[in-house]
Amino acid sequence: MNLRVVLVEPIYEGNVGSVARVMKNFGFTDLVLVRACEIEEFGLAMASHARELIEGARAVDSIEEAVEGANLVVGTTGVRGLSTDRHLRIPSLSPRELAERLQRTAGEVALLLGREDDGLTRDELLACDIVTTIPTSLDYPIMNISHAAAVLFYELSQVVPGEVKLAGHENLEHLLAHFRAALTESEYHQHKIEKTMLMLKRIFGRARLTDREVQTLHGIVRNLRWGAEHRGGEFDEDGED
Amino acid sequence: MNLRVVLVEPIYEGNVGSVARVMKNFGFTDLVLVRACEIEEFGLAMASHARELIEGARAVDSIEEAVEGANLVVGTTGVRGLSTDRHLRIPSLSPRELAERLQRTAGEVALLLGREDDGLTRDELLACDIVTTIPTSLDYPIMNISHAAAVLFYELSQVVPGEVKLAGHENLEHLLAHFRAALTESEYHQHKIEKTMLMLKRIFGRARLTDREVQTLHGIVRNLRWGAEHRGGEFDEDGED
Repeated sequence: MNLRVVLVEPIYEGNVGSVARVMKNFGFTDLVLVRACEIEEFGLAMASHARELIEGARAVDSIEEAVEGANLVVGTTGVRGLSTDRHLRIPSLSPRELAERLQRTAGEVALLLGREDDGLTRDELLACDIVTTIPTSLDYPIMNISHAAAVLFYELSQVVPGEVKLAGHENLEHLLAHFRAALTESEYHQHKIEKTMLMLKRIFGRARLTDREVQTLHGIVRNLRWGAEHRGGEFDEDGED
Repeated sequence: MNLRVVLVEPIYEGNVGSVARVMKNFGFTDLVLVRACEIEEFGLAMASHARELIEGARAVDSIEEAVEGANLVVGTTGVRGLSTDRHLRIPSLSPRELAERLQRTAGEVALLLGREDDGLTRDELLACDIVTTIPTSLDYPIMNISHAAAVLFYELSQVVPGEVKLAGHENLEHLLAHFRAALTESEYHQHKIEKTMLMLKRIFGRARLTDREVQTLHGIVRNLRWGAEHRGGEFDEDGED
């Protein structure tokens, strides 16, 4: 497993430097900055012996660009982010659960760390395959970004890579689009489609699908659509309330 | 389990503030400062919403004072600290192993975090019941103290307290003194006593002895001494090379 660390619109150069330092502490080197603040002397000083990570960081203008080619996109949010937006209904993993799910897989994981003040937006989190949350005290859940990074890197550095190649993020997106098209053309309640799609996205994210499994699921959807067409039947919509 | 965080001679007030913040993030509040730098505005700013931890911190002049009343004293050292002093021969636990050993115990754990530049000294580590080391990259093992703290607090916040009351640190020290006296009066090789004592200390630390077990061990030593006296025999010195 390769870890790509994506900082989304970081505001303080000191934090960028601190994240770079703790990345190197745990053996990670691939840093991508999305619309970041300027990194000057203070940021480099905080990076300490990891300043080459800052100097080698890729600067991009969008999250889409940052996660291109990744097999899995992991979003991070605080416990406050989870509790204040119940509609997100995010089945969030702890860092340990995330690390356990990644054991023995191969591929590239993009880990998104949000803005120091506001984290990742609802839409940014919805676009992730998996969301992870550090179990903090409810009394004061707001962690400094580099402290959160330290905990996440600590867990992810203990992942033993393996042979199970994860499906690419784009392939997952195509599969979801296939499901969406199938549901849309069926008589599935239109107002439930968004929730159902989010649920499917989370299930596939947690399940760490391989490309072969993605192909099989495409086949299932194709067959169901074909059967529905020929029988004039409709899709079963059990299981989502 | 109550955690008492002991910062030993911290140099930078910003780090003290950062450690306080991440303490509160994980629900810990008891901070002791041993011969610390002055904490002024910058330190309090780094503590953010945890400045009351700084204001309520106990300032002491020695580690002995800082750990008074604790049931277990845990030292921290980097992987570099382990590799450069082979004579310490520290069987160091990872933070996860430490947390697992503390599951379902009761009592007060004092966690010692050393100086930003030099960590804890050899003698300070020798005086701890257990030593813990974060598994970092050998390429750049030097973590910022507040990042190390974040990882340690993250693990220790997952300890579920229980009924097994740990023996007090002082009681362990008395037990060790009893062993030392017994070994010294026996014909145990004098040059091996220090190593053997360290080994015993580590064994008792890892075993998380209860007061009752400490009493039983005292009884065993007493009986062996008594037997030796009356038989004119000597202590068995197997097991240490």
